[in-house]
Amino acid sequence: MDKELRNRDIRYCMERSVFHETELGGSTPTPSNGRAIFNAAKNKLRCSRSAAKLLLLKFIPILQWLPHYPAKEWLLGDIVSGVSVGILQLPQGLAYALLAGVPPIFGLYSSFFPVFIYSFFGTSRHVSVGTFTVMSIMVGSVAESLVPTEFVQGNDTIINMDARDEARVEVVATLTLFVGIFQIILGLVQFGFVVTYLSEPLVRGYTTAATIHVTVSQLKHIFGLPLSERSQPLSLIYSLISLFRRIHNTNIGTLVVSTIALLCLFAVKEVNQKWQSKLPMPIPIELVVLVISTGLSYGINLHEQYGVGIVGNIPTGLLAPTVPKTDLFFQVVGNAFAIAVVGYTITISLAKMFAIKHGYKVDSNQELIALGLSNLTGSFFHCFAVTSSMSRSLVQESTGGNTQIAGSVSSLITLVIILKAGELFTALPKAILSAIVIANLKEMYKQFMDIPALWRTNKYDLLIWIVTFLSTICLNLDIGLGVSVIFGLLTITFRTQLPQYSVLGQVFDTDIYRDICQNTMTKEVDGIKIFRTSSAIYFANAELYAQTLKAKVGVNIDLLIEKKKKAVMKRKRGLQKVITLAQRILSNTKKGSGLEFLMNKEAIVGSLQTLSETIPNPPTLQSLGLERLSFHSLILDFAAVCFIDTVGIKMLKIIFEEFKDIEVDVYLVNCPGSILRQLQSSRFFNETFTPALIFPTIHDAVSYLSQTHESSSLQEVTAI
Amino acid sequence: MDKELRNRDIRYCMERSVFHETELGGSTPTPSNGRAIFNAAKNKLRCSRSAAKLLLLKFIPILQWLPHYPAKEWLLGDIVSGVSVGILQLPQGLAYALLAGVPPIFGLYSSFFPVFIYSFFGTSRHVSVGTFTVMSIMVGSVAESLVPTEFVQGNDTIINMDARDEARVEVVATLTLFVGIFQIILGLVQFGFVVTYLSEPLVRGYTTAATIHVTVSQLKHIFGLPLSERSQPLSLIYSLISLFRRIHNTNIGTLVVSTIALLCLFAVKEVNQKWQSKLPMPIPIELVVLVISTGLSYGINLHEQYGVGIVGNIPTGLLAPTVPKTDLFFQVVGNAFAIAVVGYTITISLAKMFAIKHGYKVDSNQELIALGLSNLTGSFFHCFAVTSSMSRSLVQESTGGNTQIAGSVSSLITLVIILKAGELFTALPKAILSAIVIANLKEMYKQFMDIPALWRTNKYDLLIWIVTFLSTICLNLDIGLGVSVIFGLLTITFRTQLPQYSVLGQVFDTDIYRDICQNTMTKEVDGIKIFRTSSAIYFANAELYAQTLKAKVGVNIDLLIEKKKKAVMKRKRGLQKVITLAQRILSNTKKGSGLEFLMNKEAIVGSLQTLSETIPNPPTLQSLGLERLSFHSLILDFAAVCFIDTVGIKMLKIIFEEFKDIEVDVYLVNCPGSILRQLQSSRFFNETFTPALIFPTIHDAVSYLSQTHESSSLQEVTAI
Repeated sequence: MDKELRNRDIRYCMERSVFHETELGGSTPTPSNGRAIFNAAKNKLRCSRSAAKLLLLKFIPILQWLPHYPAKEWLLGDIVSGVSVGILQLPQGLAYALLAGVPPIFGLYSSFFPVFIYSFFGTSRHVSVGTFTVMSIMVGSVAESLVPTEFVQGNDTIINMDARDEARVEVVATLTLFVGIFQIILGLVQFGFVVTYLSEPLVRGYTTAATIHVTVSQLKHIFGLPLSERSQPLSLIYSLISLFRRIHNTNIGTLVVSTIALLCLFAVKEVNQKWQSKLPMPIPIELVVLVISTGLSYGINLHEQYGVGIVGNIPTGLLAPTVPKTDLFFQVVGNAFAIAVVGYTITISLAKMFAIKHGYKVDSNQELIALGLSNLTGSFFHCFAVTSSMSRSLVQESTGGNTQIAGSVSSLITLVIILKAGELFTALPKAILSAIVIANLKEMYKQFMDIPALWRTNKYDLLIWIVTFLSTICLNLDIGLGVSVIFGLLTITFRTQLPQYSVLGQVFDTDIYRDICQNTMTKEVDGIKIFRTSSAIYFANAELYAQTLKAKVGVNIDLLIEKKKKAVMKRKRGLQKVITLAQRILSNTKKGSGLEFLMNKEAIVGSLQTLSETIPNPPTLQSLGLERLSFHSLILDFAAVCFIDTVGIKMLKIIFEEFKDIEVDVYLVNCPGSILRQLQSSRFFNETFTPALIFPTIHDAVSYLSQTHESSSLQEVTAI
Repeated sequence: MDKELRNRDIRYCMERSVFHETELGGSTPTPSNGRAIFNAAKNKLRCSRSAAKLLLLKFIPILQWLPHYPAKEWLLGDIVSGVSVGILQLPQGLAYALLAGVPPIFGLYSSFFPVFIYSFFGTSRHVSVGTFTVMSIMVGSVAESLVPTEFVQGNDTIINMDARDEARVEVVATLTLFVGIFQIILGLVQFGFVVTYLSEPLVRGYTTAATIHVTVSQLKHIFGLPLSERSQPLSLIYSLISLFRRIHNTNIGTLVVSTIALLCLFAVKEVNQKWQSKLPMPIPIELVVLVISTGLSYGINLHEQYGVGIVGNIPTGLLAPTVPKTDLFFQVVGNAFAIAVVGYTITISLAKMFAIKHGYKVDSNQELIALGLSNLTGSFFHCFAVTSSMSRSLVQESTGGNTQIAGSVSSLITLVIILKAGELFTALPKAILSAIVIANLKEMYKQFMDIPALWRTNKYDLLIWIVTFLSTICLNLDIGLGVSVIFGLLTITFRTQLPQYSVLGQVFDTDIYRDICQNTMTKEVDGIKIFRTSSAIYFANAELYAQTLKAKVGVNIDLLIEKKKKAVMKRKRGLQKVITLAQRILSNTKKGSGLEFLMNKEAIVGSLQTLSETIPNPPTLQSLGLERLSFHSLILDFAAVCFIDTVGIKMLKIIFEEFKDIEVDVYLVNCPGSILRQLQSSRFFNETFTPALIFPTIHDAVSYLSQTHESSSLQEVTAI
C-alpha cells in the first residue's frame, strides 16, 4: 500500500517534469517503447479522421445543432420571433439603404441574402444579422465619396441619377466583397482578437460619433433639401453649415410628413418600452408608419402636390447575381478593413452578451467567418455590408427566438416582401425612411451618459471615449477609427509611463509593507528605505524612477556625491603637497650628512605611511569628514515591474553605483524571474553587485539586514 | 522622562498626520498663532528677492561658475583644449556645410556664433557644441527639398548656382530660427523630458540610418558626379540607383583625390586611437589633409587640369546679421521640431555622460534653453542648426578642458580663421570635405554591432532599433523619426498586452509562492489555485487573462457552466411535469369523494414538499449530479497589476460570477491601493462580492482558506 503510494508519487513527479519540459523547452515526451509508438500512430489515424469531421462541424455549425433541434419546444418561438424580426427588417432595410447611398430595394436584398447565409454558419443563436446604422453610414461615406452627387450635373439629370445609383451599387458591392474577404481571412488566421483593440469606451465613443454623422446625413431628407455629400475631414461641420444656409428652401410638405412620423415613432417606442412586460411583442410602429404614410402619400399624391421626395420605382423580384468589380481595390481597401472590423466588433459584442445570458458559447473566429461569408455572398447579389443590430436582436430574443432558425424565418419574410410587395412602396416618402432612421438612434444618443459615468469610474477610459468621439466627428469614420485605435494603445504607454512611486513601511510587526503615505499603521524600518514602483521600468520612465527614488528617500544624493568627489580631490591635492614637500626636504638634506639624510628619510617615510594609513582606500565618508546618511540599506521592491529594457537596466546600474558611493547598499526584492534573466543577460552582476543582493520578499531582506547590522554595530560597541 | 517620551511620540504622530494631509489632500498646515504668520510673511519676502537672484544664476550659468573659476589650475588646460577643438572645428565646419547644402563658409559661421553663445548659457563643461553630421544632413534634406538643384536649370547656370545657394542659406536660417525657438520653448515649459521618448536603441538606430544617408549623399562628391537631390520616400534607393547608372561618368581626378584622402584619414585616425595614451593630443589629420590638399590643388591646378570640383570663392570676414524670413514656417515646422529634439537628444546624452564621469550635474531644461539660444542667435548670422559632436567633445575632455571656457577659445580660433584665413581655402577640392565627412562616420558604423548585442540582451529593444533604422532609411529623417517614436511607444503596449501568466505554488513550507513551472521546489496548495499575471489588465489583454486563467486552472469551465445550466433546465422541466401531473390528478379526484380528494391532495402536497426540499436553492453541483472541481478557492495575485480599466473590471466581475457558479470562491491578494479604489468606484463590490474577499498577501489568504476549509470539512465529518 505504502509502496503503491510512493510509486504513484513518483509517477506524478515524472508527469509533472514532462509537463515542465513541454511548457518550457517545447520538447514533447517520447514514448519509451515500440507498443507506445504503435498506439500513438493508431491514435493519430483515428484522430485525423475524426478531426475532418470536427472541422466540418466547426465550420458549418448548423450541422452540429440542427440534428438535435428540439422542434416541439422551440420551433413555435423561433417562427414567432422570426416573423417579428422580419417585420422590423422591412422598414429598417429600406431606411438604411438610404444611409448607404443606394436605392431602397438594395436594403431589402441586404436583409435577405446575408441573413439567410448567417443561419448556416453563425454560432450565436440570438443576434439578428442585417442592416445597421453605423455600417450603413460607413458604406454610404465610401459610395458618396467615390460616386458623388455632382456626378449628376452632366447632360441629362434623370438618366444620370440612375447612372449614379447604378455606379454606387457597383462600388458598394465591391466594398462589401472586400469586407467579406477581410472577415473570412481574419477568421481563418484566427485573428478574432483584433477586436480587443476596439475597447468598449472606444466602440461607444465611435458609435456615438457615427450617430451624429447619421443624424446630420438624414437632416436633408427631413427638411427636403437637396444637398451634396462631402467626404473630406470636417465634412460634418460643412454639411451643417450648408444645411443652415439653405434652411429657407425647406420643403414644408416634407417637413410636416417627417415631423408627424417622428412624433408617432417616438411616442409609440416610448409606449413599447414602458409596457414592455405587458405587450406580447412590441407594436411594429415602423411598419405601421410605413404602410399608413405610403397609403396617404398615394392617396393625396404628396409627391406632385407638395413636392415631397418619394422612394420611386421599386423593381419586383430579385436581380441576377453579378461578380463585383475588383478594380476599385486600392480605393476601398482601407475602408473595407475598417468596416470589416467594426462590423465584427458589433456582432461579437452582442453575441457574447446573449451567450453569457443564456449559457452557451460563441466562437469568435467562426463568427468572423460567418459574417464574412454573409457579406461575400451578399456582394454578388448587390447587398451592402451587414452586421447585427442591437434593437432587432433584442426583439428576436424577447419574442422567443431560440436558434438561428428565427433568422432564417425573418429572411424568408423579407424575400416574400421583395417578391410580392416591393412595388407597393413606390409612393413612400423618403422623409419617412429618414424619420425611421433617426427614431432608431434614441438608444445611441443615450451613450452620451457614458461621459459622467466614466468620469466617476475611469478617467483614462473617458479620455479614450472623448478622443474617439472627437476624432471620428472631425476626421470621419475611417481615419477617425485609425486615430482612435492608435490613441487607445498609446494611453497604455502613458499609464505605465507615470507610475505610482512609494516608500514602504512595516505594518506593525507583521511581514506586510505598505505605502507610508497612505497607511497610518505603517512605520519605516530603522536604517532601511524601501522603495516601490507600480510599473515597468523602461526608456520613458527610467529617469523618473531614479529622480523620484532620490527625492523620496529625502537626501540630495547628487550633492553628496559631488561633495565627496571634491573632498577626495582636496585630500589628493593635500597628499600631493605633502609628498612634494617631503621630496624637497629630502633633496635638500641629500646635501647634508649621510646620517641626517637617513634619519630624515626614515622620519618622512614613517609619517607618510601613517598618513596613508589613516586614509582608507577607497575613502569613506566618515574619513572625509562628511556625514553619513540616516539609512544604510535601500530595498527596491520590483513586485510590479513586469519588464525592464536596456535603458532601465543602465539606470538601475547607475543607482546601484551611486548609492554604493555614499555607502548605502541596494537590494532587489520580489524580482520576477523574467527580470532576473534580463539582468543576467545584460551582465548586470559583477564582483561588486552579486546576485546575493536579491531577496525573495521585502521581509526577508529586512530581517536579514536588521540582523547583520545589529550584530555589526554590536561588534563595534564591543570593540570600543 | 516617560511623559516626555510619550509627548514626543504624540508630536511625531501629529507631524506625520500633517504630512499625510499635504501628501494626500493637498491642504497645507496652517500656523496656529499670529507670530508664525508674521514670520512666514517675512520669509516669503526674503525668498522672493533671493528667488530672482537664483533665477538669474539659473538662466545664465556663467554668472555662477565664472566668479569661482580656479584660473591657476584650469586656465591652461582650457586654452590647450580650446585650441585643439578649434583646429577640429575648421575642417568639420567646412565639410558639414556641404552636408547642410550651403557653401562651406557657413559651416565656419556655424562653428563660431552658436559655440560662443553656448559658453554663457550651457551647463555642461565638456561638450563641444558645433556642426554635427546628423543635424547637418537633416538640415540639408530640408534645404535640398525646398530649393532643389533643378533650380539651376533655368537660363544662366553660374548666376543661378549662386542664387540657389543664397536661397538655401535663407531657408536654412529660417529652419535654424525655428529650431532655436522650439528648443527655447521646450526648455521654458520644462519639457526636457520629451527626450525620454527617444530611447537609446531608437537614437542609435536613427543615427545609424542617418549615417547611411550621409554616406550616400557624399558619394557623388567622392566620384565627382553631378546628381540632383531627392527628398521623397525611398530617395536613398533612388539616389543609389542613379549613382550607379552614371558611374561611367566618374571624374577620375576627383576619385583619386578622395581615395588618397580617405586612406590617409583612416590610417592616421587608426594611429590616433591606438596610441591614444601616448600622444599628448590626437594628430589633427583633418587639418593636415585640408592644408596639403589645398596646396596641391592650387599648385597643380586640379580644378582646371582635371575638372576636380573645388570649394571656390570664400568671402573673408563676417556677414552682417539679417532677420530670417518667417514665411516658410509651415514648410519647415515639422522638420524644425524633429531637428530641435534630435539636436537636444544628442547634446543631453553626451552632457550626462561627462557629468556622471566628472561628478557634476547638468540641468536638462537649461541645456535646451542654451542650445535654443545658440541656434536662435546663429540663425541671424546665417548659421545652420548645431548640437554637440561626440568626437570633438572627447578631444575637448581628453586634452584637459575643464569648463565652457574651452568652447569659447575654440570659437575664437574659428573666428580668426574666418577673418584671416578663409580665402586660403578657395582651391580646396570638395572631395576632400566629403572624405572628411565619411572618415568621421567610422564610429557611427560601429553601431551596427548593436544588433548582436541587443539580440543577446533585449529583443524588444532590438526591434525598436531595427524598425527605427528601416523606417529612417525608407521614409527619410523626418517622417522616419515620427514613425519610430510612435512604434517605440507602441512596443510598451505590446509588452503589457502579452504578459506572463503563471500558477503559483508554495515553496516548501515558507510564505513564498512561485511559478510552479519554473520552480521545482514549489508545490500547489491542496484545494487552492493561485494565479498571477505580470502586467496591467486592460482592454487589449482582459480576455486573454480570462482565457489563460481558465486554461491554467485546467478545467473547462465554460462546459461545466453549460452543463449546469442544462441540468437546472432539465430539473425545472421535470418539476413542471410533476406539478402538471399533480394538478391533473387533483382535478380528476375533485370529481371523486371529498375524503379521497383530501387524502390525495395531502399526499401530493407532501411529496412536492419533499421534492423541493431535496433541491437546494440555488441548486448545487452535487445536487445536480455534477462533479465538483478539485479546488474550492481561486486566489488572483494582483501584485503586478499596475492599473485596470473598465473592460478589465467587467471581465473580473464575470470571472468572479462564473467561478461562483461552479462553487469556487475567488480572492484578490496583493491588490495595490489604486486598484482597490478603482474597484470601489466602479461598484465592483456588492452583497455577494464583498471587500472581505481581499487579502494583503497570498500566504494570508492561503492560511485563512486552509483553516476554514479544514474546520468545515471537520464539521461535515462530525455531522456524519
